[in-house]
Amino acid sequence: MEKSIKKFRNMIKEKRMIDSMLAILQWDLETQTPKGGYKLISEMIGELSLKSYNLTTSKEVLDTIKKLKESLNKIDPIIKKEIDFLEEEIEKLKVIPPEEYKMYSELTAKAQGVWEVAREDNNFEKFAPVLEEIFSFNKKFIEYRKLDSDIYSTILNDYEKGMNVSKLDLFFDGLKKEIVPFLKEINEKKRNFSDKLSFTSSKLEQEKFSKEILRYIGFDLERGILSESAHPFTLTVNKDDVRLTTRYFEELPFSSVFSTIHEGGHGIYEQGVAEELKETMLADGSSMGIHESQSRFYENIIGRSREFWYGLLDRSKDKYKSLSTLSLDEVYKGINEVTPSLIRVEADELTYSLHIMVRYEIEKGILSGEYEIKDLPKIWNEKMYEYLGVVPENDKEGVLQDVHWSCGLIGYFPSYALGNVYSIQILNAMKKQMNVEGVLERGELNKIKIWLNENIHKHGKSKSPNEIMLSVTGEELNPDYYITYLKEKYTNIYD
Amino acid sequence: MEKSIKKFRNMIKEKRMIDSMLAILQWDLETQTPKGGYKLISEMIGELSLKSYNLTTSKEVLDTIKKLKESLNKIDPIIKKEIDFLEEEIEKLKVIPPEEYKMYSELTAKAQGVWEVAREDNNFEKFAPVLEEIFSFNKKFIEYRKLDSDIYSTILNDYEKGMNVSKLDLFFDGLKKEIVPFLKEINEKKRNFSDKLSFTSSKLEQEKFSKEILRYIGFDLERGILSESAHPFTLTVNKDDVRLTTRYFEELPFSSVFSTIHEGGHGIYEQGVAEELKETMLADGSSMGIHESQSRFYENIIGRSREFWYGLLDRSKDKYKSLSTLSLDEVYKGINEVTPSLIRVEADELTYSLHIMVRYEIEKGILSGEYEIKDLPKIWNEKMYEYLGVVPENDKEGVLQDVHWSCGLIGYFPSYALGNVYSIQILNAMKKQMNVEGVLERGELNKIKIWLNENIHKHGKSKSPNEIMLSVTGEELNPDYYITYLKEKYTNIYD
Repeated sequence: MEKSIKKFRNMIKEKRMIDSMLAILQWDLETQTPKGGYKLISEMIGELSLKSYNLTTSKEVLDTIKKLKESLNKIDPIIKKEIDFLEEEIEKLKVIPPEEYKMYSELTAKAQGVWEVAREDNNFEKFAPVLEEIFSFNKKFIEYRKLDSDIYSTILNDYEKGMNVSKLDLFFDGLKKEIVPFLKEINEKKRNFSDKLSFTSSKLEQEKFSKEILRYIGFDLERGILSESAHPFTLTVNKDDVRLTTRYFEELPFSSVFSTIHEGGHGIYEQGVAEELKETMLADGSSMGIHESQSRFYENIIGRSREFWYGLLDRSKDKYKSLSTLSLDEVYKGINEVTPSLIRVEADELTYSLHIMVRYEIEKGILSGEYEIKDLPKIWNEKMYEYLGVVPENDKEGVLQDVHWSCGLIGYFPSYALGNVYSIQILNAMKKQMNVEGVLERGELNKIKIWLNENIHKHGKSKSPNEIMLSVTGEELNPDYYITYLKEKYTNIYD
Repeated sequence: MEKSIKKFRNMIKEKRMIDSMLAILQWDLETQTPKGGYKLISEMIGELSLKSYNLTTSKEVLDTIKKLKESLNKIDPIIKKEIDFLEEEIEKLKVIPPEEYKMYSELTAKAQGVWEVAREDNNFEKFAPVLEEIFSFNKKFIEYRKLDSDIYSTILNDYEKGMNVSKLDLFFDGLKKEIVPFLKEINEKKRNFSDKLSFTSSKLEQEKFSKEILRYIGFDLERGILSESAHPFTLTVNKDDVRLTTRYFEELPFSSVFSTIHEGGHGIYEQGVAEELKETMLADGSSMGIHESQSRFYENIIGRSREFWYGLLDRSKDKYKSLSTLSLDEVYKGINEVTPSLIRVEADELTYSLHIMVRYEIEKGILSGEYEIKDLPKIWNEKMYEYLGVVPENDKEGVLQDVHWSCGLIGYFPSYALGNVYSIQILNAMKKQMNVEGVLERGELNKIKIWLNENIHKHGKSKSPNEIMLSVTGEELNPDYYITYLKEKYTNIYD
């Protein structure tokens, strides 16, 4: 028994080490690899992925699990959960031929370079063939599992246990009914709040400010770094090495601020997982939706609140010349102006989930066979016009804007919308125990971090999204609060 | 036979891929890993090093070599050379217990973090225990080989075939006799040439200029990157992904220029290896001495020449405000001022090899048992005073300045001095075939790159240092030219 546990721990340690190496390679690829290096690093990723596949599906792992399960009632609850997750993973992997798994890993590694070039050149056709391949691999891998549910629902459930197409349809229908008309009302009130924020700030100044904000909200820069990439993301090597990226536009200084806070939210989650879970299968976040609830919590609920800027502005004015002329009201209204725009990561809170809806419907359409890859730019633009009233002039501002599909992250986008919904429910729970506004005004961001650490972060993957929501808020996912929150906030700002 | 060759090729490919992964991890560690990440990445390096060890010394590799050697006359000369190098490597490795090899790899990975902290804190005592361990591992690994030559000579020969203590003693004695008194003469003429170069330039401006210079000398930024680190270095993932670092001091703008050109010289070498050697054991440079001949060639012979700046200044003045007020003569004399100083990488050409002499004598003394680690700061300072007439005020500017020992690179330093000597011999050969001054004045740096590519770079490791020197210059290593060059150049400048 003890021998089996030791064996299991060693296997998981090895598995996690491979994942960490993959994380370093991925990081390198997305932040700095020169063009000439794409090929070799993609091959390395392919090799390591295959190694991870072989380890996970090995007879040794299966035998060890079997042995441990023989005396399941005696083993540690952490190991029990780990076995559950491992078995789930094995179920998914074992049906995929190893060579296909390797090919797919190499493909998604290479695809990022292809996407970057296509995006730079504003040319969807360059990206279409790999995107086609990525979608068809994803489809095939699900089909191998021979499940009863439709393909997209299976994918959604993989990201967020219990999620499926009909639940999300219901959610997005609610948005269409409530938010699309509300957005039109707001839009008619045309205000130019954000004019005040359109000044120039050097990359260096923005970088310094970004790091200052990270420290301010509680991200530990001794156990993480902030770097730069075409598309901001967070990547975890382990909880003591959590890496964020942001991006800097000299003419749009607040863009980096919100990208940084968003990724900072992910990063604080990862850094906050309990030490005893560090080398286990439970060291990650509970789900992508819960993960996005943390990033969106920091970005919107904290970062776009008046109280946060009340606490931060005074501290920063001396150090960042660009801020010195702005009043609190100018900042608050400026960062909350509602402008149906083209780029998701720059979107305001009100329009954000509509961007997700566009992606959700497209993924659903491709996987069901309704849409073809080659028509995506057209479909994208039509949907943008329908929900947001704007049309991209080119693919860079349209269908090529997001990194996700090139990484193989099909079915990920709804996590952002779920994250928005969760985040409001979490805020309501937090407010019952803490004077959130006061804490923000006094700059006591640490109190918020500790609350989230205790209630959410430290549990890692040991609690399911539902378990977390139930224990924190007493309720499961409930989109009503989100819609109410949006209407109240923006009615206030625009009245 | 064909089967054996295929097997051999696959093994070497796998071996090189492990090396490339190690390179990425090393790069990460030295340029960006946060403190929290040192531990895990060191462990990864340990794991991969062990894997490389196991592969290299495996029965399979030995058997394949044996098979190939049975029909040695029929096989490709490239494979023949590869087998030679592989056998040499196996000879060195097989005597080391695998666990010790892994421990040493982890140690040197961790030691870099320790060195950085010790250096920041100006505290040699923090570094001394790991340095002690590194030296004793190196000593032990040589002793395992049970060779006749003394330890340091074995190490020197590993870096540069044919090198040993008595040859280097002779070389450094020459320097002592010729350069130390010449330096005193020059010093008495006190000129403040470099005053003109002490202006301030932002990191961003320096970074742009560094990249401009790299392009100008012919480093391909599509197949490489320039980044930043505490100690400049070059690292090759493969010939299409060659990574350089430099460092920026806002008050010393020419420091980054010469670090960048130096590393650029290494980088051009690596990028210039013939395509057919790419996945072979011969893809690296011939030796560390030849490698340094290329970096020092670019840094000094090109970068510190009047003609280079004649060609570059006009092109750059518009773009880099800081340069616009400088005349050619001011730049030329400024960058060639002789000032016995504390930091090797900032040293002028004349004093440079004296810095190497300090390190050479210390390594020799430790390995022979004459010196103890704990006394190094004192010994360092005494030797600096003896040869250069200056004494560091603290260890950061003294014994803690170089990264090499923390990486386990004991015996590397003499390569710089050999590189200096080689580079002058190469210059003399080049001058017979090309109007070097004219080429530099006209900014035709590509001609120089092509000449070096053809004569040196493309051969990779397939020619020994001696073979290269004989084919390029008709002579073996000969320090006389170097001493003559230095005396002529500085007599001219100072008269």
